[in-house]
Amino acid sequence: MKKKEVLVLEDLLGSNKKIASEIRNKLKERGILTINFLSSPGAGKTSLLEKIARRLKPQYKMSVIEGDIETERDADRIRAQGIPAWQITTGGACHLEAKMVGKILSQIPSDSDFLFIENVGNLVCPASYDLGESIRCVLLSTPEGDDKPKKYPKAFSTSQCLIITKSDLSSTLPFDFDRAQKEAQSINPQLHTFITSAEKEKGVEELANFFLSSLKNLRKKNA
Amino acid sequence: MKKKEVLVLEDLLGSNKKIASEIRNKLKERGILTINFLSSPGAGKTSLLEKIARRLKPQYKMSVIEGDIETERDADRIRAQGIPAWQITTGGACHLEAKMVGKILSQIPSDSDFLFIENVGNLVCPASYDLGESIRCVLLSTPEGDDKPKKYPKAFSTSQCLIITKSDLSSTLPFDFDRAQKEAQSINPQLHTFITSAEKEKGVEELANFFLSSLKNLRKKNA
Repeated sequence: MKKKEVLVLEDLLGSNKKIASEIRNKLKERGILTINFLSSPGAGKTSLLEKIARRLKPQYKMSVIEGDIETERDADRIRAQGIPAWQITTGGACHLEAKMVGKILSQIPSDSDFLFIENVGNLVCPASYDLGESIRCVLLSTPEGDDKPKKYPKAFSTSQCLIITKSDLSSTLPFDFDRAQKEAQSINPQLHTFITSAEKEKGVEELANFFLSSLKNLRKKNA
Repeated sequence: MKKKEVLVLEDLLGSNKKIASEIRNKLKERGILTINFLSSPGAGKTSLLEKIARRLKPQYKMSVIEGDIETERDADRIRAQGIPAWQITTGGACHLEAKMVGKILSQIPSDSDFLFIENVGNLVCPASYDLGESIRCVLLSTPEGDDKPKKYPKAFSTSQCLIITKSDLSSTLPFDFDRAQKEAQSINPQLHTFITSAEKEKGVEELANFFLSSLKNLRKKNA
């Protein structure tokens, strides 16, 4: 990378960090737990969100921001459950940035308990952009393979939570859960790991409980 | 994007295009068919390459460039088949650039028939960077879902070839081959489509034949 490019990138990341920090403070003050979902395309972010929503919805209020290059498809899937969703189409950009989230912030209902952000499907670039979330989750689907953490380390090193998805497919795949988890933990020993299948509703309760206890902690600190 | 960022990006893409064009001319003159594989992480680029290699190797000479953020894993898999492979680790960058390929060019054996380039696993950024290839192939694995072409249109609009991978998994998945193909063709009517399973060795022969006839065409033009 040339010096000029490096300077522009540093400038961009610095300004993103500042905006993200402001967003995080505002959302925390409002008692909203914000969760940023990162993964490759098709790892099952929206399907998992649908299942988590069904579990949390009777008692808790959710809002969802969907990031995609094009189409409103994911936001439409979430809205079909009666959950307010905002679609950000980046028109080519490979990740969400804090300022995009910032523009929507005033529209998020103030009685929301959770704000889920589904990032653009990409295991690389979104890892460099803090969106003001309290929890970052990286999703790894079993068909992608257990060798991905070391190949895409930043998504794993910057997350608090690893969600292995599509566990129901593993019987026909050479996916070693132990290897994937060990490799991810070697990059980031603090990772909370969940093994899930949206299709079979496995692991969804444990994950929802993790988000609920994180929400309680956030509100305890506010009190 | 700010004006300064746009200018730097335009500068970068312009210089990449120029280098890519020089690489394409050099490789064509040497009678080498260059194929750039683009896909999400874990769509099966390396597994498919291994199977294609087994089919082409008895008669044809291949060289492979592997792109990854970190690790030499993919190059090691290719080398295990006795095929010369160069690993480019970008150390964070989300795509290969023509200049990275240019640095390796002089090492590619001059009697190679094929140069395969496996890009960084990312369905977004690599689509914007011409590497000097003759054929660009976008791979879409069945677990990713049939709704991806319109969500990630540039990878499909800039490719000549769509390879649907992991077709053996489709019986347990809600993947509609017809929908995926129609959506991809609506973006790019010129796409040659192949349905493959590296696991079951399906569609590999058809794909290898497509590369072989493309090689013949390239050499006919040279003659």
